[in-house]
Amino acid sequence: MSVSHSELVADLALRASAAADRIAEIDSDRKNAALRGAAERLERATDELLEANGFDLEAARVRGLVGRPLERLTLTPERVRAMALGLRDVAALPDPVGEVTGMWTRPSGLQVGRMRIPLGVILVIYESRPNVTADVGGLCLKSGNAVLLRGGSESLNSNRAIAELLRGTLEESGLPADALQLVPLPDREIVDLLLEREDEIDLVVPRGGESLIRRVARQSRIPVIKHYKGVCHVYIDEFAEPGMARDIALNSKCQRVSVCNSAETLLIHSAVASGIGAEVLAELDGAGVELRGCERTRELFPKAVPASDSDWAEEFLDKTLAVRVVDSLDEAIEHIREHGSDHTETIVTQDITRGREFVRRVNSSSVLVNASTRFADGFEFGLGAEIGISTSKIHWFGPMGLEGLTSQKFIAFGEGTLKE
Amino acid sequence: MSVSHSELVADLALRASAAADRIAEIDSDRKNAALRGAAERLERATDELLEANGFDLEAARVRGLVGRPLERLTLTPERVRAMALGLRDVAALPDPVGEVTGMWTRPSGLQVGRMRIPLGVILVIYESRPNVTADVGGLCLKSGNAVLLRGGSESLNSNRAIAELLRGTLEESGLPADALQLVPLPDREIVDLLLEREDEIDLVVPRGGESLIRRVARQSRIPVIKHYKGVCHVYIDEFAEPGMARDIALNSKCQRVSVCNSAETLLIHSAVASGIGAEVLAELDGAGVELRGCERTRELFPKAVPASDSDWAEEFLDKTLAVRVVDSLDEAIEHIREHGSDHTETIVTQDITRGREFVRRVNSSSVLVNASTRFADGFEFGLGAEIGISTSKIHWFGPMGLEGLTSQKFIAFGEGTLKE
Repeated sequence: MSVSHSELVADLALRASAAADRIAEIDSDRKNAALRGAAERLERATDELLEANGFDLEAARVRGLVGRPLERLTLTPERVRAMALGLRDVAALPDPVGEVTGMWTRPSGLQVGRMRIPLGVILVIYESRPNVTADVGGLCLKSGNAVLLRGGSESLNSNRAIAELLRGTLEESGLPADALQLVPLPDREIVDLLLEREDEIDLVVPRGGESLIRRVARQSRIPVIKHYKGVCHVYIDEFAEPGMARDIALNSKCQRVSVCNSAETLLIHSAVASGIGAEVLAELDGAGVELRGCERTRELFPKAVPASDSDWAEEFLDKTLAVRVVDSLDEAIEHIREHGSDHTETIVTQDITRGREFVRRVNSSSVLVNASTRFADGFEFGLGAEIGISTSKIHWFGPMGLEGLTSQKFIAFGEGTLKE
Repeated sequence: MSVSHSELVADLALRASAAADRIAEIDSDRKNAALRGAAERLERATDELLEANGFDLEAARVRGLVGRPLERLTLTPERVRAMALGLRDVAALPDPVGEVTGMWTRPSGLQVGRMRIPLGVILVIYESRPNVTADVGGLCLKSGNAVLLRGGSESLNSNRAIAELLRGTLEESGLPADALQLVPLPDREIVDLLLEREDEIDLVVPRGGESLIRRVARQSRIPVIKHYKGVCHVYIDEFAEPGMARDIALNSKCQRVSVCNSAETLLIHSAVASGIGAEVLAELDGAGVELRGCERTRELFPKAVPASDSDWAEEFLDKTLAVRVVDSLDEAIEHIREHGSDHTETIVTQDITRGREFVRRVNSSSVLVNASTRFADGFEFGLGAEIGISTSKIHWFGPMGLEGLTSQKFIAFGEGTLKE
């Protein structure tokens, strides 16, 4: 391990930590002005950003990158505008810092409450999309945190251009520029060294594939927000309304197949399997979805291919859906517990007791009734934006917005109150 | 690493995980009845518990244990009653599981909220006090979690007797006995193996000295609640009421010196140093406190010994207090940031603006105004009881009761709501 690498990492971490103390104290108006300023700067610098992005795209093409990975890496004027809009949206959100979430009085006379505070320094590790630099930067700054951004090597030029613009705005606004730092060398050794800086870095948010997240979680001495995968379920209950069952199954699966909150498994109550079930399967098939079914599914719809055991835990991210017929709500819940990923599940039912039971007993991060799984994100839930979706229960569970980037301290007011 | 050890650990973890699914679904009445039943059983079995404790005490004496460590290990009829009372108190607390902490409606028509759920399996690692077995067991069960209790080897007989009684009550009440398991062999190898079971165990709470906690935090693949130490500050502001300053300084330092929320450093504003300051120092000295002061402190009170650099970050847990004179609130806050442990700080002031500034800017887990630092605990803050005090900001910060043993899932209700 080279000395220069560990010196670089120490410098990054210590600067971030010092900046965190300062950004935590900046009031909402100044943070919001800086965010709006950054949005304007981004828009004005569109040409410059596209030029920097051009270098990344050229290098990617030389390396033979095509299709979706290349598409993800690409900046366009629309995407720059979307970044700017995102920053303005975050500026418009309420500031969580300083919010008192409750206050009560104790028999001792002490008035006790809890107040939101920033977490400190957040390390975000992400892959090719350069817009993450602005999106994540905006959320961290608004919540009073300093952020270390470690983007993918393939988008380094784009990320650098975006980060420099944001840092320039911070400086101009009298905010500490080091509250937003891009890790200049995106090699793995640097990440490993960063994951050891538990005295300066408070939280790690890896955004990317399951293998990246597992590696970071194993390596890290710092708490990690984990989002392994989304194996989301639609359960069509015995008492589902037929049209609603069809619409929700289709919307959950097909509205956008490549995202973590799209459905990967359909569970159908046996009492309605030959009716609603068969109809929904035909519709899905008509929409081009490959169905992988249990035996009873294949009796209903012979065109379905047999599901293998591993299909039940598979995140297809494609026009593929596993389908199983179950005999009860209990069996549906058991299936979700055994094979699910704690991400998002929905029940379609007109029976209020069943709906309530599903909500009470299924402990995934988002549990819905009569709605498409596609709603499980920070924007649709009203958090404004999200830094990611946590599928583990520590610190935050589900779509994570500004609130998830804070902690709460206890505050207490006495009048010379003494312990007896 | 012996095969038998890893088999034992796998068995413990898998049983706990299966029990967690079941205990999470038990309603409040049944959990409360089991807790009250356990309290009664403990009281009825006092003789039996004291006998088991006798074996531990004898072994401890043979090993030469004396003084406070031996005292901590000792069960008495009063301590058994206190355990029972603790369980009854926890039974009387509101159940956090199922609580909906907020609900709002989105433009899509979706009604979105958040609902508290148990974390799953909690591993608690503690040292000699056998009462922790009942206290922690009660909190985990009430919050719907399964718990793995790894007590110290010196209290194994006592812990086993208490755990067996609690498991007996669970069984009798139709609750899963494996929701509470004592780790049968308290050697370090077992702990290391448990800290690798990230698929079954959700949270680790080490209770004990800083070195234990640091070792667990470094070793663990599972999130750890950290409570390193309590270097708590009392700051006597320029506008402090003299009598209140004296009372709070004395109470914070002397009411009980061996606990983490007692004061270890006193900061005095220079404008009142020769007045209130000198008077408070004389009172502390009269109460038998050894004062270690900065130069200006020693000018005020020559009997104070010179403070060394390391004294500012020292958790004395004894009748020793570091004292520094500062020229401003800013300087006091800077001192706390640099040397503090994020545990508990209090300001004594009659100036409301200064009080508010201290509360806003000091981001320790408990920040008080005109009250003794000794109030920073779960009972005094109204949480009913506490499993520990977290001094790191992830998941929970400060005294951690039932709420800290839960997470929140998103719940959402639609009427066939589809994503456009």
